[in-house]
Amino acid sequence: MSEKRGLPEASIARLCMLYTLLGDLVEQGQARVSSSELGRILDIAPHSIRKDISLLGEVGNVGSGYDTTRLRAHIRDRLHLERPRNACVVGLGKLGTAILGFERFRESGITMVAGFDSNINRLETIRTSIEVFPAYEIAEIVQRKKIVLGVIAVPPLAAQEAADRLMRGGVRGIVNFSPAPIRHNPEKVFVTTMDVEREFAILSARIAFNNE
Amino acid sequence: MSEKRGLPEASIARLCMLYTLLGDLVEQGQARVSSSELGRILDIAPHSIRKDISLLGEVGNVGSGYDTTRLRAHIRDRLHLERPRNACVVGLGKLGTAILGFERFRESGITMVAGFDSNINRLETIRTSIEVFPAYEIAEIVQRKKIVLGVIAVPPLAAQEAADRLMRGGVRGIVNFSPAPIRHNPEKVFVTTMDVEREFAILSARIAFNNE
Repeated sequence: MSEKRGLPEASIARLCMLYTLLGDLVEQGQARVSSSELGRILDIAPHSIRKDISLLGEVGNVGSGYDTTRLRAHIRDRLHLERPRNACVVGLGKLGTAILGFERFRESGITMVAGFDSNINRLETIRTSIEVFPAYEIAEIVQRKKIVLGVIAVPPLAAQEAADRLMRGGVRGIVNFSPAPIRHNPEKVFVTTMDVEREFAILSARIAFNNE
Repeated sequence: MSEKRGLPEASIARLCMLYTLLGDLVEQGQARVSSSELGRILDIAPHSIRKDISLLGEVGNVGSGYDTTRLRAHIRDRLHLERPRNACVVGLGKLGTAILGFERFRESGITMVAGFDSNINRLETIRTSIEVFPAYEIAEIVQRKKIVLGVIAVPPLAAQEAADRLMRGGVRGIVNFSPAPIRHNPEKVFVTTMDVEREFAILSARIAFNNE
């Protein structure tokens, strides 16, 4: 539907934050939540939250707050998060292996189906229930297993090659844990960088400028 | 200096991106770089990059591009990234242990000095050169070791307690790897959430809306 096609990027990001937060609230047994409570927790203006939610269409009476379970299902359906997606991890060092084993992904319809590493010894000794393959097979396996999401957890100088192989196989979204930026065609592939060093640097600078 | 105090949050974030990128370029042996090349890699308008850099004061002739090593040192000094900061990790599962061992942090003046977990068995079996402690000692150790940055890598329902202990000890910046939002006083503590599940959900929704 066209109004969905036109959902702004920023609204998608906020609704996904809301979606994972609602998962926590449901888990904690909270049945209802107001837009002002959601806004306080997420540090977003309540009217923005109400507006984002309204973009998804009718969601029921808001006077007494949102039903957490129903709102979560509503966001999931409208954002197509129920659609199953296969994912993989490239780079099976400590971080990559940790991500390979994350269990929460299923909440967003994501199934980890493969891990890759260029180090054959590592592939032989790794303990995981997920199939692992040498890095040179990335493009082939991605295509064969219909993998659309990839995580890059290799050293910076190996990141672009990993990304190129993923994209050659047909991956559509990449979470890049390396600090190296990934060259890609933004019309075909979405790339998000999650760099802990950068986040630490930002926190350090903010502390230096604002509180010391 | 007052002009530094007034550096916008968004500029701080972009300059930190630039800082980690320049580290890569230096490592790859690239001596000079133009604002348009930086802009292309980071997907930021070149004039924004020039403006952010100009906020830091004189950095030398730009006609033939920036000297990568010098610009990096310049950003480091002006953002006080040379200032040493102690950091810790709460939650020593796979992800927390991986972060505890990251070596790139030193680039931003950060030293990992402690790990914490509520599981005593885990503390006894973990293999790391960094000192580890039971979670109930967080506030005391944070204070004693002058830790200002903390990473939270515990399950969602344990995240707030971990954060409260860190903040009680005097931590000023938190990188939260749990999907749970952290209640905190934003005038005293900065919190960044890095939630892989959320990023995957955002990528899934973007793929669904824009390319399918």
